[in-house]
Amino acid sequence: MKLEPNQIASHNERLLSKHQQRLTFASQEVHNSDHILQQLSDFQIGIPSWALGTGGTRFGRFSLGGEPGNIEEKLEDIGLLHQLNASSAAVSLHIPWDTTTDVPAIKTLATQYGLHFDAMNSNTFQDQRDQQHSYKFGSLQHVNKEVRKQAITHNIEVIRQGVELGSKALTIWLADGSCFPGQLNFRKAFENTLESLQEIYTALPADWKVFVEYKAFEPNFYSTTVGDWGQSLLYANKLGPKAFTLVDLGHHLPNANIEQIVSLLLMEGKLGGFHFNDSKYGDDDLTAGCMKPYQLFLIFNELVEGMDQRGMNHKDDLAWMIDASHNVKDPLEDLLQSVEAIMIAYAQALSVDRIALVQAQQENDVVRCQEILQQAFRTDVRPLVAEARLRAGAALSPIALYRESEVRKELIRNRGNQTIATGL
Amino acid sequence: MKLEPNQIASHNERLLSKHQQRLTFASQEVHNSDHILQQLSDFQIGIPSWALGTGGTRFGRFSLGGEPGNIEEKLEDIGLLHQLNASSAAVSLHIPWDTTTDVPAIKTLATQYGLHFDAMNSNTFQDQRDQQHSYKFGSLQHVNKEVRKQAITHNIEVIRQGVELGSKALTIWLADGSCFPGQLNFRKAFENTLESLQEIYTALPADWKVFVEYKAFEPNFYSTTVGDWGQSLLYANKLGPKAFTLVDLGHHLPNANIEQIVSLLLMEGKLGGFHFNDSKYGDDDLTAGCMKPYQLFLIFNELVEGMDQRGMNHKDDLAWMIDASHNVKDPLEDLLQSVEAIMIAYAQALSVDRIALVQAQQENDVVRCQEILQQAFRTDVRPLVAEARLRAGAALSPIALYRESEVRKELIRNRGNQTIATGL
Amino acid sequence: MKLEPNQIASHNERLLSKHQQRLTFASQEVHNSDHILQQLSDFQIGIPSWALGTGGTRFGRFSLGGEPGNIEEKLEDIGLLHQLNASSAAVSLHIPWDTTTDVPAIKTLATQYGLHFDAMNSNTFQDQRDQQHSYKFGSLQHVNKEVRKQAITHNIEVIRQGVELGSKALTIWLADGSCFPGQLNFRKAFENTLESLQEIYTALPADWKVFVEYKAFEPNFYSTTVGDWGQSLLYANKLGPKAFTLVDLGHHLPNANIEQIVSLLLMEGKLGGFHFNDSKYGDDDLTAGCMKPYQLFLIFNELVEGMDQRGMNHKDDLAWMIDASHNVKDPLEDLLQSVEAIMIAYAQALSVDRIALVQAQQENDVVRCQEILQQAFRTDVRPLVAEARLRAGAALSPIALYRESEVRKELIRNRGNQTIATGL
Amino acid sequence: MKLEPNQIASHNERLLSKHQQRLTFASQEVHNSDHILQQLSDFQIGIPSWALGTGGTRFGRFSLGGEPGNIEEKLEDIGLLHQLNASSAAVSLHIPWDTTTDVPAIKTLATQYGLHFDAMNSNTFQDQRDQQHSYKFGSLQHVNKEVRKQAITHNIEVIRQGVELGSKALTIWLADGSCFPGQLNFRKAFENTLESLQEIYTALPADWKVFVEYKAFEPNFYSTTVGDWGQSLLYANKLGPKAFTLVDLGHHLPNANIEQIVSLLLMEGKLGGFHFNDSKYGDDDLTAGCMKPYQLFLIFNELVEGMDQRGMNHKDDLAWMIDASHNVKDPLEDLLQSVEAIMIAYAQALSVDRIALVQAQQENDVVRCQEILQQAFRTDVRPLVAEARLRAGAALSPIALYRESEVRKELIRNRGNQTIATGL
Repeated sequence: MKLEPNQIASHNERLLSKHQQRLTFASQEVHNSDHILQQLSDFQIGIPSWALGTGGTRFGRFSLGGEPGNIEEKLEDIGLLHQLNASSAAVSLHIPWDTTTDVPAIKTLATQYGLHFDAMNSNTFQDQRDQQHSYKFGSLQHVNKEVRKQAITHNIEVIRQGVELGSKALTIWLADGSCFPGQLNFRKAFENTLESLQEIYTALPADWKVFVEYKAFEPNFYSTTVGDWGQSLLYANKLGPKAFTLVDLGHHLPNANIEQIVSLLLMEGKLGGFHFNDSKYGDDDLTAGCMKPYQLFLIFNELVEGMDQRGMNHKDDLAWMIDASHNVKDPLEDLLQSVEAIMIAYAQALSVDRIALVQAQQENDVVRCQEILQQAFRTDVRPLVAEARLRAGAALSPIALYRESEVRKELIRNRGNQTIATGL
Repeated sequence: MKLEPNQIASHNERLLSKHQQRLTFASQEVHNSDHILQQLSDFQIGIPSWALGTGGTRFGRFSLGGEPGNIEEKLEDIGLLHQLNASSAAVSLHIPWDTTTDVPAIKTLATQYGLHFDAMNSNTFQDQRDQQHSYKFGSLQHVNKEVRKQAITHNIEVIRQGVELGSKALTIWLADGSCFPGQLNFRKAFENTLESLQEIYTALPADWKVFVEYKAFEPNFYSTTVGDWGQSLLYANKLGPKAFTLVDLGHHLPNANIEQIVSLLLMEGKLGGFHFNDSKYGDDDLTAGCMKPYQLFLIFNELVEGMDQRGMNHKDDLAWMIDASHNVKDPLEDLLQSVEAIMIAYAQALSVDRIALVQAQQENDVVRCQEILQQAFRTDVRPLVAEARLRAGAALSPIALYRESEVRKELIRNRGNQTIATGL
Repeated sequence: MKLEPNQIASHNERLLSKHQQRLTFASQEVHNSDHILQQLSDFQIGIPSWALGTGGTRFGRFSLGGEPGNIEEKLEDIGLLHQLNASSAAVSLHIPWDTTTDVPAIKTLATQYGLHFDAMNSNTFQDQRDQQHSYKFGSLQHVNKEVRKQAITHNIEVIRQGVELGSKALTIWLADGSCFPGQLNFRKAFENTLESLQEIYTALPADWKVFVEYKAFEPNFYSTTVGDWGQSLLYANKLGPKAFTLVDLGHHLPNANIEQIVSLLLMEGKLGGFHFNDSKYGDDDLTAGCMKPYQLFLIFNELVEGMDQRGMNHKDDLAWMIDASHNVKDPLEDLLQSVEAIMIAYAQALSVDRIALVQAQQENDVVRCQEILQQAFRTDVRPLVAEARLRAGAALSPIALYRESEVRKELIRNRGNQTIATGL
Repeated sequence: MKLEPNQIASHNERLLSKHQQRLTFASQEVHNSDHILQQLSDFQIGIPSWALGTGGTRFGRFSLGGEPGNIEEKLEDIGLLHQLNASSAAVSLHIPWDTTTDVPAIKTLATQYGLHFDAMNSNTFQDQRDQQHSYKFGSLQHVNKEVRKQAITHNIEVIRQGVELGSKALTIWLADGSCFPGQLNFRKAFENTLESLQEIYTALPADWKVFVEYKAFEPNFYSTTVGDWGQSLLYANKLGPKAFTLVDLGHHLPNANIEQIVSLLLMEGKLGGFHFNDSKYGDDDLTAGCMKPYQLFLIFNELVEGMDQRGMNHKDDLAWMIDASHNVKDPLEDLLQSVEAIMIAYAQALSVDRIALVQAQQENDVVRCQEILQQAFRTDVRPLVAEARLRAGAALSPIALYRESEVRKELIRNRGNQTIATGL
């Protein structure tokens, strides 16, 4: 489904006068609104192909209907999101769920929607039909070299598919680990994993990156072989200059200071990208910013400061992606909410008075430091985010337009009520 | 599959002399070995019907083969466990997974295996085929009275089936809750749930109990409507004398002092039963005692002290059940390990020198208090647990005999490699 | 130190025009700004006498200078805060630190500052010079009746002093608990504590309340005898209608859903009051709203909804207090930041579109529920909070005026650099 | 106070026959008892000078009496511990608390007690009298170079004192960090700290090591500048071959897998030493093994495996120290309990059937892996630990002898009831 240009136009027209009034006010409240608007326009967040259908837990899944059943439909959905918010120009595919036999057609389709292919994702945490060896006891870490080889081969195949599609990065999330004390030798698991990663690394094209994602726990419940940023960084350093750490906000132990990790990874030149989501207990994979919006802002505060300090390009030098599971919301609405929350946090971080902050830090004026950050966070920058959309031809209020247009109804009509998005 | 009596006998014979030597020593180390042996013989732990197959996570499941495909096969498996350890005489069924059309046959079968039916479990956390209303947004808490009614009716049906089978209790675990702030009104959710529980309570036979299980999170990731012991106790108190709280060891926030909760629930006369398992991060559902065996001992220490103080019968006055998920182990071996760990913890708790402990507590002699508990925990009581099995005609080393007898191989031969236990 | 009226006036004058512009905008953004302004004007937050000096940890304390050395100076400091924000009209005293020999003088002084006496706090977590029995092993829980008696007597003495001063409530925070498994019998500790509380309860005047505060851990590191809301509620229910639970935001296990606890305590008619602060790891006692401002808003969202539903008076029916430790900030500035954050969260909660929220909840429109709450939270209500201050004759920007007036410098000049506020 | 040799002899004589019976049994249960006995005899655990007095929290401290008031008395106390258990031959000093003006006398005294000097500890988390700059806002991280310089100078002075005493290592625990978002720039704090550490590193003698201790939180409650093992390893790698990471068991986020961290640090050749203690909530500094004895065993399991694999010497190649706070126990008894728990865990780890474990891991026989570890943990090795003491001329039951000898009474008689151990 695709919106007609005039649908967006008439939607915007209705909201325009109120929007402009708010924009005027917001532009006065923020010292650098032009800069923020420019940065917001450039910023694009990758949508994971697996997040377009209803998610679930081990206890069950409650489908919504109209879910995309193949890669073409997934592109269609993301295309629609991008029409609505002009901030979702990238697609993150998952192999084998999204393997296509007709690459040129898929590339053409993506181009029509204004989309490009962000990091490719391999899958060695599930057994596929006709797979020779099982990943029940790990993949790249496995004690059996044959199993490792199979997993390596799969990752190289994912790179191959990515090259054809024009992607430039491979994200490796490993479920590898153990459920019980004694089950594996931590050191050997690390060494096996490193050796496997090195083989994959060797297969990377010159202009590619590989992201080593870490996660504290789940689906293994005792140890994870890439369990925290320290371990991921060890791998990335041993692999070489094309290897980076990927941070997923839900992959930490309780109370972790993620923004500090972000800052240090940037310092080391080893931050590769992000999986945005939010959580209260574990890897809850909830909508970005729904639970701890101040933390999201603080993370962006470090990102902006650290990237600027290194002269990095906000848009391209890190991979920005959502990774979420939509168990009780319409996935497309959920993704719109996530993108909105991310853009707000980014805009707020851009609005921080950095000169004043550096000075207050230099004076250990803790009260003032807090005032400066809170000033940025408490200011309502939504009009700036909306204006960036407006200028890009997208909707002032994406969810409102999505609902007015009865998109879900239409998708169910086209795809049926019982479809299940491929994947989990 | 069933073991021949002589299989057990010849297994025991081989181990007997070493066992007796150990038993002699253990009996000297513990001041009340006869009492412990008696208590261990009586103690029986319910096996959940859903834990006989390989478990999984939202990321996947790696089957083992030979899993029971129906209630008859589940009883067969539990019968085998009980042959091996003489401590698994109870079955906890789950409806609708275990609904049977031939109750008398099932009862006869259970009797043949020496099994009886422990608490029945209802399921309103999944949608069953042909179910009119969805539980996507809760069941007993649902804003729509029709949905609540459907869930109530299901629970009453579970009671009906339980009555036929000779069960005496209903366990209600509710996934009800919310994933996002604002999604529901906590108070109304509580009130709806209470009202629903009251209707179910009314349908309880006079000699039945209902257990209200609590859980901190998962599958809902913001709030759970029976989220902690305090909430469960509120429900139980408002319901009446047949309502009790059920404690699952994995259902708490990080660092919770579960043994204190146990003690206070006993004090209030409202502890109903247990779901044993172990965990490191959340509701990991690992083998009992595999991660924090000292905690398991401390819990039993409170149970023994608290039950004795109230004159309760260890065997019958609480419902003792395992609730676990066997993702990387043979489920039957895992259950044997769990039962062994539980029996060890129970034996250690029974061996605590209570007179000395009370005196040390009275004197605030904290060092001595710790010495007394550690003395019980550090003493190797496994020979007592083995002796209790021996006296009951079970195996000195259940897992060894299970493996010698090549049970899994036989189950796969009989049931096939691709069977999936009904349930999750 | 006291500000001259014209200091405030000239401060406000400079900021007025900008303020009015913002106020106009904010009043348009919020549907009920008049109501909010009225509520904000009424709302008063108690300042704890022990938070006026620099706090510390077991590792040390870094004093600031100019700290109040007696109750007169503490009242002076709070009077100043109240001049600045018109929202700190209440004082929460701590006995014996704030025991006075001249009650009439203190009452007169308080009246001059526009202050009244909020809940009184007893102290049985420290040994005072000349105290007969030690609280090393607890106070109201102690195995020795003589120790309990001493602690009961102290609490009754605190009530007596409170009556003289015009306070209407006693807050009991107990450090009682244990550091090691086995150290105490949980049930007996509960029973002793209950018995002790009952004696104190008996001594309460008819128009007094007693607040039973709970805390998960610290200074005891294994168990706490009033460890969570469930335990506190048990005590409160057993004590009677004048006993209530007091919630301190930092007194929970990781990831606890505090807003749900608040809602249920209101439902039970047993929420008595609040200790505001913020934290990342434990009872960090940081500035309210500095870490998780959305959580603070969600808590106020439940407070407003729950109080309104019960017809409670926002201002008087709960005790609103700060409890914080100012280790690296000027305590007075820190308190101003806390009050500001609390007022913002309260204003945002008041601005929630409740009719729409109820409807969205009724339809399980989770996306909409989230939008409604985020709309309230993302709106910048600071102009409303400032306006409430302005109308009450306080400062538009309290911290700015505090700094312009060089208050700390003056306090150091008057009181010296080495003064230590009585207390911890 | 010092025990007479015949006191120990007569104590042992009374317990000998029972002990020998137990030893005989334990030696049969364990396949390598001779090896274990040898290793236990060699193993020595450093006692921190600051743990000889009663500890406290920010809420207070309850003294015991008879606490050592100077370094001579501290050595006396540790000498006594070493007489009792023959496993406490090392002292870990803290400067400036233990600065001595008469080094030769102190060295002679230590030698008389059979003690040597383990890692020296610097203190830049408190302000000392007459100190020019405050550490309120950090030391090695401080924005002001003068403050950093002062802290560097202090560390170099600690090395100097250590060299005189014969120590070979410096432990740097930094409280540096921040309490509020925005307070510091994480990257600059890291860089300042690194630069400072490099200056200290340069001052290290050739045969010295420096240990960089990490801690998740407290006394700073937002960020810590050496916050986790990943950060510590970054510093250690950047510093050079004499820099190592030091692990304190209480310095992690909830649920951290410490044994995996230990294994990986050993793999990297960067594990330097240990601070043993136990905890339930945070850095509770409780007696080693009092809360999670299985975790302690699992850590030793990794230590033994990893050290053996690298050909490391158990006794000397890592620094083994206790770091605890004795709030409710007699510190000397508490230390005896800690050492006992550590020796038990070490003995159990030594008894693990490594050949069988490697094979089971190679076969992914998870059940067997668990059985092997649990076999080691459930076996009662206390007789081996006692025998190692006996052979070294120490007491079979150290705490019993300590109590029989009425040591505390004597210490109070000699030192008085109101003495306070220097330090916290």
